[in-house]
Amino acid sequence: MLTMLEIEGFRETARAAIGASRATILQKMSSGWSTRRKADSSLVTDVDLAAESAVRDVITRRHPDHGILGEELTSVNPGSEFQWVIDPIDGTLNFAHGVPLYGSILALLHKGDPIVGVIDHPSLGITTEAAHECGTFRNGERIRIVDIASEQDIAEEIIAVGGREQFVRSGAAGLFDRLFSGHRFVRTYNDCFGHTLAASGAVGAMIDVDLHIWDIAATRVLIEEAGGEFVLTASPQGLSKDGRYDAIFGKPSVVRWLLDGFMKEA
Amino acid sequence: MLTMLEIEGFRETARAAIGASRATILQKMSSGWSTRRKADSSLVTDVDLAAESAVRDVITRRHPDHGILGEELTSVNPGSEFQWVIDPIDGTLNFAHGVPLYGSILALLHKGDPIVGVIDHPSLGITTEAAHECGTFRNGERIRIVDIASEQDIAEEIIAVGGREQFVRSGAAGLFDRLFSGHRFVRTYNDCFGHTLAASGAVGAMIDVDLHIWDIAATRVLIEEAGGEFVLTASPQGLSKDGRYDAIFGKPSVVRWLLDGFMKEA
Repeated sequence: MLTMLEIEGFRETARAAIGASRATILQKMSSGWSTRRKADSSLVTDVDLAAESAVRDVITRRHPDHGILGEELTSVNPGSEFQWVIDPIDGTLNFAHGVPLYGSILALLHKGDPIVGVIDHPSLGITTEAAHECGTFRNGERIRIVDIASEQDIAEEIIAVGGREQFVRSGAAGLFDRLFSGHRFVRTYNDCFGHTLAASGAVGAMIDVDLHIWDIAATRVLIEEAGGEFVLTASPQGLSKDGRYDAIFGKPSVVRWLLDGFMKEA
Repeated sequence: MLTMLEIEGFRETARAAIGASRATILQKMSSGWSTRRKADSSLVTDVDLAAESAVRDVITRRHPDHGILGEELTSVNPGSEFQWVIDPIDGTLNFAHGVPLYGSILALLHKGDPIVGVIDHPSLGITTEAAHECGTFRNGERIRIVDIASEQDIAEEIIAVGGREQFVRSGAAGLFDRLFSGHRFVRTYNDCFGHTLAASGAVGAMIDVDLHIWDIAATRVLIEEAGGEFVLTASPQGLSKDGRYDAIFGKPSVVRWLLDGFMKEA
């Protein structure tokens, strides 16, 4: 069991690390940066690398014994019961094209459970953060997910999804297509932008698939601490760079409706 | 023919009007607002009404003889060769749900041709404006649409679309579905947010359908003055509140590729 004081300390670390990441990203955006393609053909920029380094520096300085698992750089202290997971630029496609919805994600897992989570959107000026039993905050203001009052209200809810290319990779293209033809307001609010919207109840729920641990750990804390529901529909064994997760999260009734309806038709 | 001085004056009016609209929206957002449903079942809020009034006040004070056509209020001076068209909150669904991508649109038509256009996103802090032969500017900085270098680069471009519900209304649901299965990166960046992205080249092009004149007039100037291509694929006769437009706009080669490929398969 961790004390509130310990959790508060970790949250301070997360804030400082995300602050360093945001400063790095905005500075690089104004000074120029370059892009290259990774072995898996996904994009990486030197901004990703610089931002992840900035985050790691803050964590290592404050918690030299903690583990760090990041998208771009080598893992450290893989045996620690504390593991920080980092995605310095989630939504690199958006970032590289100049779509301002990309973000940075940081979470702390204790014995496998996420206890601190932050999603930051440098170009939007929106930071959402949460810590275990401390609530969820957006730019310093407490936010809560208000569930819909009745089943009928689902028709008015926006359902967020990732890109169809993610559903194709995850073998779930049929689910993607069924959602668009079966619900009126479906939107591709890819990557952590959709997670940010779900944490404030702006979208009823999000279905996001083919995710890494660093894409999903912060979201679990953000959603649950805001009073929402977070369900993994696919999850690998243990913590690794390779495992892939599928998740549904948002307002409890909307999550249930998606699980009982669209997911079962598959 | 209008002089540059006249056009510059109209641009100043547009800036002042959009500034008044943004101030009204942000003030209403912090003080609280209410929503109701219009006869056509679409949403309207008292923020829409207040923002449109604020815009109209600025225009009427400066150009009492100009026409005004707005989504929410009665038309004035319908016979004038100058017609301002206003959508005070484009993306009311997003606005009402707390998705920050909604925006305000304002354009001036002279003898039916848009000569000044502004799209403002109060919650994102992004304003894009253009005037005939004066270029396109984003937050005061000149922006240009850079065309792709070759056909192969299309695979890396993001194609923006409106919601599937718009394509259904426009009888083009098949086009929507073909786009998602035929191109890797398709995103529902609804309403004027997609237009803003197209004007800076962040998306390769956007296909947007079932639009009113106030949704599309500003975009024509923004895209063309940035060096992009704007094509109406459906357009009513004359200027009215009822006519509906379909459009494709963005990087010239991507617009051509969409016109020659996906549109022809219909």
